[in-house]
Parts: sequence; C-alpha cells; structure tokens
Amino acid sequence: MQTRAVVLNERPEGMPKSSDFAVIETDLPDPGEGEVQVENLCMSVDPYMRGRMVDRKSYVPPFQIGEVLTGGAIGRVTKSNNPGFAEGDHVTSHYGWREAFTASAEGIEKLGDIVAEPSAYLGAIGMPGMTAYVGLLEVGALKEGETVFVSGAAGAVGSIVGQIAKLKGCRVLGSAGSADKVDLLTNELGFDYAFNYKDGSILGHLREGAPDGLDVYFDNVGADHLQAAIMHMRQFGRIPLCGAIAQYNDTEPRPGPNNLAVAIGLGLTLRGFIVSHFNHMAADFRSDMEGWVTSGQINYKETTFNGIDQAGEAFIGLFTGANTGKMVVNF
Amino acid sequence: MQTRAVVLNERPEGMPKSSDFAVIETDLPDPGEGEVQVENLCMSVDPYMRGRMVDRKSYVPPFQIGEVLTGGAIGRVTKSNNPGFAEGDHVTSHYGWREAFTASAEGIEKLGDIVAEPSAYLGAIGMPGMTAYVGLLEVGALKEGETVFVSGAAGAVGSIVGQIAKLKGCRVLGSAGSADKVDLLTNELGFDYAFNYKDGSILGHLREGAPDGLDVYFDNVGADHLQAAIMHMRQFGRIPLCGAIAQYNDTEPRPGPNNLAVAIGLGLTLRGFIVSHFNHMAADFRSDMEGWVTSGQINYKETTFNGIDQAGEAFIGLFTGANTGKMVVNF
Repeated sequence: MQTRAVVLNERPEGMPKSSDFAVIETDLPDPGEGEVQVENLCMSVDPYMRGRMVDRKSYVPPFQIGEVLTGGAIGRVTKSNNPGFAEGDHVTSHYGWREAFTASAEGIEKLGDIVAEPSAYLGAIGMPGMTAYVGLLEVGALKEGETVFVSGAAGAVGSIVGQIAKLKGCRVLGSAGSADKVDLLTNELGFDYAFNYKDGSILGHLREGAPDGLDVYFDNVGADHLQAAIMHMRQFGRIPLCGAIAQYNDTEPRPGPNNLAVAIGLGLTLRGFIVSHFNHMAADFRSDMEGWVTSGQINYKETTFNGIDQAGEAFIGLFTGANTGKMVVNF
Repeated sequence: MQTRAVVLNERPEGMPKSSDFAVIETDLPDPGEGEVQVENLCMSVDPYMRGRMVDRKSYVPPFQIGEVLTGGAIGRVTKSNNPGFAEGDHVTSHYGWREAFTASAEGIEKLGDIVAEPSAYLGAIGMPGMTAYVGLLEVGALKEGETVFVSGAAGAVGSIVGQIAKLKGCRVLGSAGSADKVDLLTNELGFDYAFNYKDGSILGHLREGAPDGLDVYFDNVGADHLQAAIMHMRQFGRIPLCGAIAQYNDTEPRPGPNNLAVAIGLGLTLRGFIVSHFNHMAADFRSDMEGWVTSGQINYKETTFNGIDQAGEAFIGLFTGANTGKMVVNF
C-alpha cells in the first residue's frame, strides 16, 4: 500500500516558501511484530519546526533534505500487531506530515478516553497547551492577582496562557497582529487589555494597559516585544522565554534587548524553557486542562487547513499571522 | 568643627573625569540627642555609583549636583550621645565620601568584633563579598562540581566569586583586563583558567578553558562577555546578572546579546539581582566569610588610594581597570 507524506525539498532562506516542501508517495507496509499501522486524522504545524529546517546544532537535530518531516499528529489505529493497541484506538505520535504510517509502538502513545475533538489534543490539551501551562505556572511562577502580559496572544500557546492567567485571578494583557485578533482576545477570551503591536508603541500600550507594571511577561516573539516588556516590569518580575517567532526567519542574528541591565536592579528573571523539560507535569496538565475545556473555562481556537497538500501552506501561515489559535491540518 | 567631603560637581558624560567631583569643607556638629559622631577610616567606591550619577529613575535615587556623595564606609565613633554606641566602636555606614560625620544612629551599624582589618568590611566581608556569596550560591544556585565562569574576575566581587566556587569544588574560569590580573587569578587565587579578554575571542577562551561548557556564568560586565557566555552554556545553566561595567559609561543604549533565543532550548536562567534583595542572608554570609578569611581559604585583594582628595580618582579607576580586588580609599 502507498500513502502520501511531506518532505523538506529545500532549506528555507528567510521566510519559508511553498517550494521548500514537496509531497511524495511512500510505502505503507503492514505492521510487523510489535508494530502498529495508524491513519492520521490531523497534524500540527508549530513554529519550533522552523529551527529544525536549518542545518545547525539545536535542541532537536535538523531535518534532512528529502526526508519526511516529523511533528505532532493524532490518528487512529487501523491495523495492530501489538497487544497494547487495538484497531480504532486514538493515538498521538510525532509521525505528522504524512497521511498514515506503520511504526513500532515506542513512538506512539494511546490517548485513552478523549473529552474533546481529536485536534484539541494537538492544541489546548496538547503540546501548545502544556507549554502555556508549565511556562506560566512553573517557569513564570504565577501568583494570584498578578499582572501578566503575553505576546502572540491569539496563537496556540498565547491564547491558552491568557486564559489560564484569568482563571488564576490575574489581570491579563495580550498583543496580536490584527484588529480581528485583538477583538477575539477581549471579546471572547477574557483578556483585560489587548492591542495590535503593529499600531503604536508596544511600551505605550503596556503603560496604558498595566499602569503599575508587569509581574510576568510570557515571551512568544522576542525582539521589540521583549525589550518593551523589560522596560515595564515590576520588581522581581519573571519572563518565561518560550519563543522568538519574530526572529525565526532572520538570516542574520538580531541584536537583543538593549536594556537587560534593568533586570539587575529590579531582580528580574528571564528563563528559557521547552515543554519537554517538564514532562513530569504531563498528567497534572491533562487532568486540569480537560477539566477547564469541558467546563468551558478554556475556550480553544483553531485555524484549519485541509489535506496533506496544504501542510506546507499551513506552516508558512504561522509566520504571516494566518492562524488564530492552533494551526491544524486535517486529513 | 569642620571636615571635608566630596560632592558631585557635574554629572559625568561617558567616562567620569576629575572635575566631575569637588572636595568641600563642611560642618561637623557635636552629636545631638541620640546621635553619634564618627571619624571614617576608609570608604568604598563601587561601580553601581555610576548609575546614581545619572539623573534617571533607578533602584536607588540619583545623586544631586552639589550634594555630598554617599557610599559604604567604615569608621570609629569619636563622640556618642546614644547609649547604643561607645567611643572607639567600629561602625559601618553609607556616609562615605567624607572624612567624618555626625548622624542619628539609624544609618549606622556597629560592626562588633572584627577579625580582619577594617577595610576588609568594605570588600570581602562587606557588600562586594556578600554580592558574590548570594549571587553565586542563591541566584546562581551553584552545585558542587559544576563549571563556573566569572567576568571582572580580578575585581572586588569577581575575585570572591571565583574563590567561593573553588571552595565548593567547582572548576573556575575568569576573565580580566591585563596580564598581571590574569596571573593573579591563576597563581594566587586558584582559578583553573584565566584569560585577558582584550586578547583573542572570549568564546574561543571559554571553549579552551571549559570544553564541556559552563553551568554558571556570573556576569559583572555585560556586553560581549554575556553574548559569548550564552553561546557556551550547558543545559539548565544559570546566569546571575550582577553588573554591566562595560556599559555603565555608554551614552547610548547598547544592543543586547543577539543569541538570547539559545536560552529557550537550553532552559537557561538569566537572573538580575542586587545584594539588598538578600539582606536576610547577611548573618550567614558574615559567619561563613569571616571563617574563610581567617582560615586563609579566601584571599582578599585591595587597591588603595589615600585621602579624600583621591576619592574621585579612585572611582574613575574602577572604569579604567586600575583596581585589583576591592578599590578602597583610606583616610
């Protein structure tokens, strides 16, 4: 049997383009001893994948030209040659960017009972949601009643950061890149103050939305946002460094914030993290987040593309602001 | 009675110069009810004072033109009108930059029994030593056997950072600005590797001195040092941000490290602090440090200037690299 998958055709220079990706036909063997065959229902595209398209040392090894890309996916078992998996089981894996696959059980995890549509397990109840959860509560050491600012606030991570902070009784500010997204933040997601970062000075907005300063800045974008937030932090403020999407397509290193010395007097903490540093919190996260989603306390948003042919476009859309909430490719 | 003191004559632009300071004659009244009169034995000049010479909001308010400067000093009580103080008591205060003063007891602290010469209580057993102690052990969360790099390693703070790290069984690297200082670090202070940062690339030196990377970088200087250290950190490394002496005389903000995104994947923590955030550790610090100094495990260095007329020059010398260890003005 055959299936389709996406390979890296060329390494992107700057902003990725369609021709950097190619859809190929590939074999889908029957499962051997201990193996499982899975049909993917949906796959994730995430900003961190941009880093893996560059040929350099990083926290995950680079993708190779001509190799099928990988990333989060949710699927159903179609054939099982492993006693731990039955036909019809929902599973999560890193075998995204392909319609179906056959693999040993090691890289596949059963989802068990699910309380929302499968794609939610790529977003709010998946890696981006857990990134928000550990980043805000552990790395950011959020305390009730504090003031929180999150950039990329209409994105998969940011939209969850803001809502968790509201659940914890905080004042929440968010930035996004369009008027529609700003409306979503204040009208649907409960943000106290939101602004379009393309419109006016970021620091001016922060002063307006948080006259007494920020206790936590959850940084998804880096660059100007980070510098402005540092300028507006309160004493002992925390800055979880989660992403720097504004910089991922830079071809030259970009200067960092020119005001890092402010962190000395204020006792600020800037702490980088990736979600896998906190795998020990996965069970707590899933239990909390499933509760919040089913009770309606967390409202998750998706932008969907359809079909493997659209996967490259969906990925590119992450950098053009095409997504509100989690970007998902459905099959 | 009259005494002499130093006022801020002009706000320095860039590197401070002699004419930014002026020595004046000022009254030395007899102590009123509850007051104490003190003759200073020595005073401290410290890099943080540079920030207070600029008219801007900071963690301590700016010095005013024509006002007597303040800073750490050690003195002896000459007249007391307060039951808590007796003639001859050693005291520490912020009434530096003057030969003598009369003040209420609030801003004066008795040193009690001292185990080293008074000036040591401005350095190794004083604020710079405590900065090293809390910055390395608390902010830097140093663990035995780790690899530590400290910049400004021949300075008042850096020289103590390196020696505490050695006491804790760490491998220690240090940078300084002259061959003599580099010799001091390796020959007298027990550093495992030291280099002149003016000679070759900082990152190249770090790779040579710590092939497996750094667990802690104690940042006294900012700028290029910080960027190079970030590039060479190990996973979950910590960077106490203590000072940015390379930048204190900048007249324009200087771009920050261009590689802060490295902190994300590695889970690095950059944390600013000032010693007064850790006043609760003062008793532990003094007891530990007096023990290390009297046993000879901590070797403290001083560069001394003599007389109130030299105080401005001593301060300027901090930025030209004139000091090895603590810069002290003796009276």
